Amino acid sequence: MLPKGNFPEKIFLNGELISSHEATISVFDRGFLFGDGIYEVMVQLENGLFYKDAHWERLQRNLDKIGIAYDVTEMEAQLDPLLVSSNLTNKPCLIYMQVTRGVAPRKHAFPKDVPPTVMMYALPYTLPHINSKSSHAILRSDNRWLRCDIKSISLLGNVMANERAMEENADEAVLVRDGFITEGSHTNIFFVKSGKVYTHPANQLILDGITRKIVLKLCEDLDIPMMEKAIGVDEIDDMDEAFLTGTTTQIASIAKLGDHIYHTPDAIGPITKKLQQAFADLKNLEPSKLVL
Amino acid sequence: MLPKGNFPEKIFLNGELISSHEATISVFDRGFLFGDGIYEVMVQLENGLFYKDAHWERLQRNLDKIGIAYDVTEMEAQLDPLLVSSNLTNKPCLIYMQVTRGVAPRKHAFPKDVPPTVMMYALPYTLPHINSKSSHAILRSDNRWLRCDIKSISLLGNVMANERAMEENADEAVLVRDGFITEGSHTNIFFVKSGKVYTHPANQLILDGITRKIVLKLCEDLDIPMMEKAIGVDEIDDMDEAFLTGTTTQIASIAKLGDHIYHTPDAIGPITKKLQQAFADLKNLEPSKLVL
Repeated sequence: MLPKGNFPEKIFLNGELISSHEATISVFDRGFLFGDGIYEVMVQLENGLFYKDAHWERLQRNLDKIGIAYDVTEMEAQLDPLLVSSNLTNKPCLIYMQVTRGVAPRKHAFPKDVPPTVMMYALPYTLPHINSKSSHAILRSDNRWLRCDIKSISLLGNVMANERAMEENADEAVLVRDGFITEGSHTNIFFVKSGKVYTHPANQLILDGITRKIVLKLCEDLDIPMMEKAIGVDEIDDMDEAFLTGTTTQIASIAKLGDHIYHTPDAIGPITKKLQQAFADLKNLEPSKLVL
Repeated sequence: MLPKGNFPEKIFLNGELISSHEATISVFDRGFLFGDGIYEVMVQLENGLFYKDAHWERLQRNLDKIGIAYDVTEMEAQLDPLLVSSNLTNKPCLIYMQVTRGVAPRKHAFPKDVPPTVMMYALPYTLPHINSKSSHAILRSDNRWLRCDIKSISLLGNVMANERAMEENADEAVLVRDGFITEGSHTNIFFVKSGKVYTHPANQLILDGITRKIVLKLCEDLDIPMMEKAIGVDEIDDMDEAFLTGTTTQIASIAKLGDHIYHTPDAIGPITKKLQQAFADLKNLEPSKLVL
């Protein structure tokens, strides 16, 4: 039985659609014993799934990276039945997907011939048209592993950084490695200086966010100069604007980063505002047009 | 239902003793979603638990480090009933313990007022008197997070390194960070040079293994000079001996590390041999005398 809380109606688990209360896995699942799995989050708007191909492709790519043999098109085929049984067909919702290496006696090395554990659920969730929040982000040392490009469920480092932000009544923890800002605990980060947009290169130190990619494309479309370059923690004060991106975050202006104040509440900077509007406009497009 | 494999008879799970086949957790357990938990492994010999206080203390210390509020003495009190129901009272076995932050809707920050998930099992396991194996360890870049002192279940980095060792028909992957050898994927590593023993300092880059501590104490007892100092990857060739330590590994001589050969099969070095014998002797002591 689950405690009280905002749990989904139904779970797709290993080929079956069951209630959340019945959705259990073995304690020998490698997701539970080793954090040995990949996850993905996407949203459905009223007019369809938002950048679904990018999300499915990333899930497949990440599974390939850690050698979990699973074809995500199997899962994709189960999404409609899941939405139907969750009463969420054509309704705004968040879709969470997770695949782990399956159930086996505890041993570090990969088990042979074990089917992966496949889990997916949909939860009612309506994105605001524009995320008009003025965020406060704290700075934390980035102590995560060096393969942050892998969207793995071994997330303790992210969890601990995020918890610290919550303890300090902030919205996000922005991470600093070797003097450079990498990303947030569950978002990417962008800066604006003299009309030019900066974000960390998509290497092994950050997750290559779908919204991050969308923003880079919007910069191109809007003729906003853009550069994939890490910003030093000593450059925070020199920047004009800063914002976070993510699937549920969309584009969130940073009002305060560490001790530096970028803007007073609601006085969101011009480039951030422009990108927020352009991002919001994407949501009115025919979903099939949303490709990266 | 579990696949075929060497699973334990019984699982202690959240206050109940159940069969392994029935031991399931919610898919919303934070162990499964975030790798948000701590584990511990200890062994029982015929004469009792080996260094049990050190293991329980480490489990408690690690839970405290990540802010999981749980008193391990509760779990300790359940060990005897578990051993009885597993038919392992006074029998050689391995005891695995895991505590996660519990079940809650998926959100990075810690949930409030959620009881932790507590799991423990015992599996028949007889340690060899001396681990006489001549091991082959490959070298891998240490890409894990910077809090390896925490015995967390977010283990994907360790798992992937270990898998690579298995693929190369080796016994362990020894990790190298910034040119220095840290530890193995699930062992600590020691070197011997001119009669002096070296191992990485117990800082945030390695797990402070119980067997590691025992070996350091044995060096003291045996008047073997010892220093906690990281060995550079460029010093591997200069070392005379190398060995791995761990709860199930005990002390395993390294015959080959990367491309360097320390000894031919079975020709284990004199210091390694001396420590192996001294370690084996500890197992004959009254368990209450085994303190660190």
